[in-house]
Amino acid sequence: MHIDTTGTYTDSYQIAMGQSLFRDGQHRRRAVFDYFFRKIPFEGGYVVFAGLEDLIDTLESWRFTADDIDFLAGHGFDAAYLDYLRTLRFSGSILAASEGDVVFPTAPILRVEAGVVEAQLIETLLLNTLNFQSLIATKAARIREVAGDAILSEFGLRRAQGPAGVPAARAAVIGGFDSTSNVYAAQRYGLRAEGTMAHSFIQWHGDELAAFRAFAQARPDNTVLLVDTYSTLDSGVPNAIIVGREMAARGHRLRAIRLDSGDLAFFARRARTMLDDAGLHEVKIAASNQLDEYVVRSLRQQGAPIDIFGVGTSLVTGQPDAALDGVYKLACAQGEPRIKVSESLVKTTLPGLKQVHRFLAADGQFHGVDAVALEDEAVPRALTHPFEPHRTMRLPALRSEPLLQPVMAAGRRLHARRSVADIRAHAAQRRALLPPEYRRFENPHAWKVGISDRLHGLRERLRQARLHPETTP
Amino acid sequence: MHIDTTGTYTDSYQIAMGQSLFRDGQHRRRAVFDYFFRKIPFEGGYVVFAGLEDLIDTLESWRFTADDIDFLAGHGFDAAYLDYLRTLRFSGSILAASEGDVVFPTAPILRVEAGVVEAQLIETLLLNTLNFQSLIATKAARIREVAGDAILSEFGLRRAQGPAGVPAARAAVIGGFDSTSNVYAAQRYGLRAEGTMAHSFIQWHGDELAAFRAFAQARPDNTVLLVDTYSTLDSGVPNAIIVGREMAARGHRLRAIRLDSGDLAFFARRARTMLDDAGLHEVKIAASNQLDEYVVRSLRQQGAPIDIFGVGTSLVTGQPDAALDGVYKLACAQGEPRIKVSESLVKTTLPGLKQVHRFLAADGQFHGVDAVALEDEAVPRALTHPFEPHRTMRLPALRSEPLLQPVMAAGRRLHARRSVADIRAHAAQRRALLPPEYRRFENPHAWKVGISDRLHGLRERLRQARLHPETTP
Repeated sequence: MHIDTTGTYTDSYQIAMGQSLFRDGQHRRRAVFDYFFRKIPFEGGYVVFAGLEDLIDTLESWRFTADDIDFLAGHGFDAAYLDYLRTLRFSGSILAASEGDVVFPTAPILRVEAGVVEAQLIETLLLNTLNFQSLIATKAARIREVAGDAILSEFGLRRAQGPAGVPAARAAVIGGFDSTSNVYAAQRYGLRAEGTMAHSFIQWHGDELAAFRAFAQARPDNTVLLVDTYSTLDSGVPNAIIVGREMAARGHRLRAIRLDSGDLAFFARRARTMLDDAGLHEVKIAASNQLDEYVVRSLRQQGAPIDIFGVGTSLVTGQPDAALDGVYKLACAQGEPRIKVSESLVKTTLPGLKQVHRFLAADGQFHGVDAVALEDEAVPRALTHPFEPHRTMRLPALRSEPLLQPVMAAGRRLHARRSVADIRAHAAQRRALLPPEYRRFENPHAWKVGISDRLHGLRERLRQARLHPETTP
Repeated sequence: MHIDTTGTYTDSYQIAMGQSLFRDGQHRRRAVFDYFFRKIPFEGGYVVFAGLEDLIDTLESWRFTADDIDFLAGHGFDAAYLDYLRTLRFSGSILAASEGDVVFPTAPILRVEAGVVEAQLIETLLLNTLNFQSLIATKAARIREVAGDAILSEFGLRRAQGPAGVPAARAAVIGGFDSTSNVYAAQRYGLRAEGTMAHSFIQWHGDELAAFRAFAQARPDNTVLLVDTYSTLDSGVPNAIIVGREMAARGHRLRAIRLDSGDLAFFARRARTMLDDAGLHEVKIAASNQLDEYVVRSLRQQGAPIDIFGVGTSLVTGQPDAALDGVYKLACAQGEPRIKVSESLVKTTLPGLKQVHRFLAADGQFHGVDAVALEDEAVPRALTHPFEPHRTMRLPALRSEPLLQPVMAAGRRLHARRSVADIRAHAAQRRALLPPEYRRFENPHAWKVGISDRLHGLRERLRQARLHPETTP
């Protein structure tokens, strides 16, 4: 399988709308779109924003290939429009929150300013990239929350949603994982590849001890022995101890044993005792088998002596949500603010060019409030709830940071590409600024997102004009 | 983003185990692996097997690139082993169920016979391909079950798990969808691309009627107008009627209007009446907005006059399961049957070279039983439950079909590639052979998978030898 995010990596309607705008000569007029989401997945208290560097890379090389144009030519598009698409490049600007930051519903995380056709054509790939990586980074962060200083390794490629396993590995590391079993992702993103051994290797050899010896011989610097193929305590751990001692005698060290079935807390405790009794105190215990943040938390709370957790399916597919509901909405057309109205304010969009201000408490922690304001106004201290306008709040004098920063201009990246390791470190720093009530699993405290009075007023004016067009001036 | 399934598209341990087997000179010895799953997703009665043609394509071109080898060279692998990997191609044989067939837990769906290192190295990509596409084809088939003859279009790329949106579109069509919004997938797999219009297009124009007119002008042969941007019944449908009449006067036809919010049954009924009253009987109604098989069923049961359903997130991510639990287990090593034992029989594997026989009732429908037997025995009529050996059954004399058929030999495909349209038609035929009790959503009848007496006996012998090695001859 081979997948590229070329120009046709989009929804059919983007290309159809583009033809209409091109015919009318509007294709280069400026549009502003906001990216934001509405619901935090996993019933959690925050989302980890991820995928930005991949998106920027994609946009820098984005184009319709000759094959793309040939394909579209067979679908009734105008020749002049196809000529335009043939040489089209993304030439817009992007402001965004920093990749790895914690972000919250309603507030824009990213803003695109570009010719309207460009801005529409990239919508689908932008959502496709950011929604998924943010989902997985958030899931990974939840597992990291409860794993303490245990080593976390992503093991999900075989159950991943096909090629999604590749960006999933990247996002898992951003969210706090240490390594991945996915060699392709490791190679591509500079991640640490990590592996153990499979049951089939032991079945192949038939004799478990012979299999362990063969594996230790071939990978003496990174030997992890899977001990549950026949019987964990009767054969697996005893055979691993034999091999661990043989390795020690040769100046090597057995890195770990791995448990992949049964009651992991029970087996880990028994195996730890057996290893310790054999003097193999440094041999770690790895555990896998349908882990998620709740199982890892339970194992840690029980004091199970597990040093390495391998997490697969639930992490790389973002179970049980499987999607972040991020959307991309028009905020300005040719310099004029625009909204989409709806019977419910929740689905009415925020118009205009906006900035998001994050407030910091005196202790340096996050204060738990983001303010969405128009770009040209001062940091607001009076805020209105975005959907329940009777709820207002006044903020004390607090330090604040503008979240949206320029990352692309005229279609080019503005800063050197950040490594996944750097983004992972930044994500950990930002998460550390979250007071614990936002990080807990049960009914986490709801981060407040407010809108400024000016933004509220603008939205009301545009909304009334839509609802009662006859009464507008 | 650019993703290829090269040699490193695998788990790290596959490459590590390969080094051990290579050092010991065992790498070319023959291994047999079975692919099967344990649990039907979505609490359904069947799985639609999908992904096979993509897998065969991938295996025909599978190799470690020069970049792959360079990457591995930095990770402590032996030079001789890397030289072996550099020229390695998949040279094995594969037998499989037909793509699109309905398949059931426990019975092998596919069997790989190859040199043990090849067979291990491809495990991850095989699982990654088949698990995901089968999951999505199954979800799509569930939606088709309740959609009658409505048009079903896949709209999920923006919420798909990154690049998974591409194979998801293919699998959706195999499961019974008619088209996709994903242009890249349509181009790559020969699917029908279909699109409507976005709210942003109407916001951009400000004036809804002007937006509708511009769109109809540009795409007169395929105009679908989105009617809920401002007010569905007060402006959207009336404006669509104006444009529909204008199009008719020019000899064109408005294809459909699209509802994307609110109570779809209510709005569809009201919109249908308004369109009919205007003489626009042929204009279809399309609906979208967080649909799944339950919402589509409800809308159909209410008699909502919806002709086209656009289904996104729940389809392309396989919510709520998000993964099929398919596994790949060693069945023979160098011609000798092998098992993995476990405290529970459910996790004990079925050893040896096997065939799966499907029984057909006198009326030509499926009888609801698959028998797993050793390849060299006759079609069995006495079967044992695979995990509860006290449960046995005798079958009447019935026609049967062997499900596993050769699809690759010596690393090459044996048959011309089947188009997605062909596979979709085959899938519909096979589903039509399922009695309705296997197709219902609530407590579907459990398809029976039994094992032959000889297979049962072989597993018991190998199991006892593992459990009580001292007593084996």
